[in-house]
Amino acid sequence: MNFFEGEMSLEKVRQTLIRLEDTIIFQLIERSQFGRNKIIYENNKFGFKNFSGSFLEYYVRERESLDSSIRRYDSPDELPFFNKLQSPILPKLEYPKVLHPNNINVNNKIWDSYINNVVPRICPIDDDSNYGSSATIDISCLQALSRRIHFGKFVAEAKFTDPKYHEEYVKLITNKEKDKIYELLTNKEVEKKLLARVEKKARTFGQDIEFKDNEIPHLKIQPTLIPELYRDFIIPLTKEVELEYLLNRLNEPNMSEEEKQGNLYLIF
Amino acid sequence: MNFFEGEMSLEKVRQTLIRLEDTIIFQLIERSQFGRNKIIYENNKFGFKNFSGSFLEYYVRERESLDSSIRRYDSPDELPFFNKLQSPILPKLEYPKVLHPNNINVNNKIWDSYINNVVPRICPIDDDSNYGSSATIDISCLQALSRRIHFGKFVAEAKFTDPKYHEEYVKLITNKEKDKIYELLTNKEVEKKLLARVEKKARTFGQDIEFKDNEIPHLKIQPTLIPELYRDFIIPLTKEVELEYLLNRLNEPNMSEEEKQGNLYLIF
Repeated sequence: MNFFEGEMSLEKVRQTLIRLEDTIIFQLIERSQFGRNKIIYENNKFGFKNFSGSFLEYYVRERESLDSSIRRYDSPDELPFFNKLQSPILPKLEYPKVLHPNNINVNNKIWDSYINNVVPRICPIDDDSNYGSSATIDISCLQALSRRIHFGKFVAEAKFTDPKYHEEYVKLITNKEKDKIYELLTNKEVEKKLLARVEKKARTFGQDIEFKDNEIPHLKIQPTLIPELYRDFIIPLTKEVELEYLLNRLNEPNMSEEEKQGNLYLIF
Repeated sequence: MNFFEGEMSLEKVRQTLIRLEDTIIFQLIERSQFGRNKIIYENNKFGFKNFSGSFLEYYVRERESLDSSIRRYDSPDELPFFNKLQSPILPKLEYPKVLHPNNINVNNKIWDSYINNVVPRICPIDDDSNYGSSATIDISCLQALSRRIHFGKFVAEAKFTDPKYHEEYVKLITNKEKDKIYELLTNKEVEKKLLARVEKKARTFGQDIEFKDNEIPHLKIQPTLIPELYRDFIIPLTKEVELEYLLNRLNEPNMSEEEKQGNLYLIF
């Protein structure tokens, strides 16, 4: 059974987000074995013809073009970093609609934070020439972070439809009370548990099983980095997505939004 | 500093292989969260026009075509699963030559074993419709396994050039004594330690930090599966690559082999 079958509950959404933490931590650990290699993020360093962006930008664009052709971005939990994608070459599939039509995409912010704040903090080596390997893992990291953060839409939808809060959300949205919506979205207890959990995951998955001092294994990344990333980057952006989604939750969708959101989609 | 700089030693090769174990185990754990989804491995199930292979085959071909354009397969430790790749669109770079020119590529065998033996054993669910996600991780798994197994070439080169064994290898290769070469390549002690280590890694990295019974965390994959995969699939294929490499180690390379191996390469 896949995620969108059956009823969507906040609990089901949370389970998906908890599993996604493992993916994000695995990929960041993978990235940390290579140098920062900032040349791959700088424009015009690799001699592409007729392309003036960075190596990573070129690679992500081409990967997204391929992935769109096999319907990745028909799925509401996958959003591209660049426009001008290929149309799917496979027949469309019909799936139940879960989200209110929307065009929310904060991938620009994710890209900037990842390259400027995350990579320099997890990669101790400056440049090791592993440009292709680094870019390959960058894509996995960016996609996992993007999926996590845009899952805020599902979180918001689940909270909005929860009978316990529905009336209050409708009232706050109608009055455009941003701060109060933000407050109602925030569950300090859940956030605190999350930060403790991701640190424990980083400490567990980052163990270097081969190398130990007095039976204490070396760690491949500083484990406190992961809760810091969640606190300063992932959680705030997720909540930005949730807020944006809710602010538009009561709007009548126009046709182009409907089209973009896709009534028809599939799990990627 | 990258792998091919400085002197290549068996110890340096082994460190790379030990780190690659983590990558392989991470990716297999990632794959295990989705269904087996065998439809993606079957021909003609997805309605591609003018293509009669499987969904995964289509996706790997296209990914390899893109990756070859940014020089992935110029690197001697990256081998494609399919032919007919794009020429690099980036200028070639010159790197020191490490391996004896060769065309050894056992990716067909890796593909078959992975799809028919590995996936069914790590994926408890039959079909969950996550075809794109499954295929995306399949590519990461296949590439990590391929890199690991073809690293046998570097293992063999390091063993061949080790002064302690060099003369003996030359003699055995000259006399084409396959069984004795295989025996000399085998280090039972190292293999035993490896099997214990990868089980420990699977047990550590596969922990489901959130869910516990009596403080014992659930495991995302059966940890004994990983040493079994190494014993029955990864180690034998690596040694097949080592043996093949050594049997041709004293041949004069002809020009086309030289060309294919590429005196000019870069780390991907």
